[in-house]
Amino acid sequence: MTNTQIILKSKPDGNPSAENFEIASTDIPSPQDGEILCKALYLSLDPYMRGQISGRHISGTVHPGDLMRGETVSEVIESKSDVFKVGDLVMHHGGWQEFSITNSDDATLVDQRLKPYSLALGVMGMPGLTAYAGVHYLGELKPSDVVLVSAASGAVGSMVGQYALNIGCRVIGIAGSDEKCGWLRDVAGFHGTINYKNENLAEAIKRECPEGVDFYFDNVGGDMLDTVMWQLAIGARVVLCGLMAQYNTDVIPPGPNPASIIKARATVRGLVVYDFHDKKQEFLDFTIPLLDEEKIKYREDVSEGLDQAPHAFERLMKGQNFGKTIIKIS
Amino acid sequence: MTNTQIILKSKPDGNPSAENFEIASTDIPSPQDGEILCKALYLSLDPYMRGQISGRHISGTVHPGDLMRGETVSEVIESKSDVFKVGDLVMHHGGWQEFSITNSDDATLVDQRLKPYSLALGVMGMPGLTAYAGVHYLGELKPSDVVLVSAASGAVGSMVGQYALNIGCRVIGIAGSDEKCGWLRDVAGFHGTINYKNENLAEAIKRECPEGVDFYFDNVGGDMLDTVMWQLAIGARVVLCGLMAQYNTDVIPPGPNPASIIKARATVRGLVVYDFHDKKQEFLDFTIPLLDEEKIKYREDVSEGLDQAPHAFERLMKGQNFGKTIIKIS
Repeated sequence: MTNTQIILKSKPDGNPSAENFEIASTDIPSPQDGEILCKALYLSLDPYMRGQISGRHISGTVHPGDLMRGETVSEVIESKSDVFKVGDLVMHHGGWQEFSITNSDDATLVDQRLKPYSLALGVMGMPGLTAYAGVHYLGELKPSDVVLVSAASGAVGSMVGQYALNIGCRVIGIAGSDEKCGWLRDVAGFHGTINYKNENLAEAIKRECPEGVDFYFDNVGGDMLDTVMWQLAIGARVVLCGLMAQYNTDVIPPGPNPASIIKARATVRGLVVYDFHDKKQEFLDFTIPLLDEEKIKYREDVSEGLDQAPHAFERLMKGQNFGKTIIKIS
Repeated sequence: MTNTQIILKSKPDGNPSAENFEIASTDIPSPQDGEILCKALYLSLDPYMRGQISGRHISGTVHPGDLMRGETVSEVIESKSDVFKVGDLVMHHGGWQEFSITNSDDATLVDQRLKPYSLALGVMGMPGLTAYAGVHYLGELKPSDVVLVSAASGAVGSMVGQYALNIGCRVIGIAGSDEKCGWLRDVAGFHGTINYKNENLAEAIKRECPEGVDFYFDNVGGDMLDTVMWQLAIGARVVLCGLMAQYNTDVIPPGPNPASIIKARATVRGLVVYDFHDKKQEFLDFTIPLLDEEKIKYREDVSEGLDQAPHAFERLMKGQNFGKTIIKIS
């Protein structure tokens, strides 16, 4: 039996495509004392991975020839650790491969309340925690706030919007297709949506948020961020979380002019989810009941088979996914 | 007797010069019920006036042919108000002229504790209140913070630095001449200075703030802001207050990339001093004792005669002033 892996073959010039990756086959490693051998069930694909390829992500760089990194839900199939036993379901950074070894300190049990377990990688995992931190720790949201979120049908954006709905805010989502916008309104309960691909964004924001935007959660950066910054209400809060607009660029483009921040007396904060690791249990305990009561809706974009990961990543980076991108491995 | 005024003659292309202004002579107006006639003693010149000429300042636009606006300390020489009597010293927006009329609601008495009275336009006036709000309301300063301030020898910057020194912070100032830097270190007590005109700014910040910048008070925008944003420590706070770098431009340039904010988990806030009008008495009561104990140092750049205002404004916009720019009128 061998271990199938997906390796970065070449650094993409612009948007990544399947040709930038290759499949490799290695021996299945053996765990040492304190380690466990994991067989992956689900792999999460996330936009930050493009930043790792560019060498511009806080978590480090993936070079050509390296195994692609990523968070996984796995079954423990061999244990030399006192912490986990064979059959346990664990989350860790297993990467784009079938079998991985990890020190037990770097793995956590999947919360048994989650069904399907892939939720642990999406709305109930790092993306959900990101949204939770942005809304409940950085956003200072009031029920009277008008909330705008970009990449709104994604795992982070959909949770930001739904946490804000739960607070009582008016919530507007920006997404890239009528199908996504329809889901946001009809299923997730957003008050309004903007399809940025066929509307003038500034005019659409004025229509949906005539008194301005009180809270903007940005997953994108680039021109979209600049446009929104000039539509802020006085006292607005902005959380910067993602840089989708520049993951595919080699140079770091400029951002919004500081006058947009001064004019609105805005508070702009940068969010890195790793800083909120200690809030994970609080986040789960808060969110699982909402999920059980169907107050939280979610979409997953599931591809079957590890070999589909490069193609799914290409679709993700082009915004062609709809919901959290998950690779079901076995 | 006539009223001498300074009128905007033409919109400057880039940096303003004395030729963009002209002297006019009008009749001295008569106050109506509830109004006072004021004779100006001191006029304040401030960088925001360039923004008014560009039509990009929050307080409105000055068009060619208009009287230049500005804050003044004046003596009441005729009163049809119950609030003020002849001989009172008042502050109001009298503009670049000798005599002005104001509704008594729009004027305030100059605090009698201030000597000279011109301080009411500088470190003990709007610029001082700006610094007070930035440090004491928006900055969340701790004694362990490393504080960096641009335009540090100006009225706002010098007060930001001295309030931070009073808290116990390590304070570094950026200024545009060795003379200004020397004053900041030797008189105002700053721990370090950077002459941005003859040092590489990024390298100088690394030298003066090897652990990064915890609090940055920005009076400038532009390239300087962008450079500082990449030198922030984790958890940094940034107050955006001035846009000296772009007052002379016709197009609004971009600002720092959002990645700089995310990387530092920074909190960036816009400051408009008008929002802190209700803190003015608190600011005076806090600051006057510090001034009396000579814990606050200040510089004024005083020109004699209203006809000197255009030239003094040109020097101010070129950074050739040293301290608060004041026109002594009579």
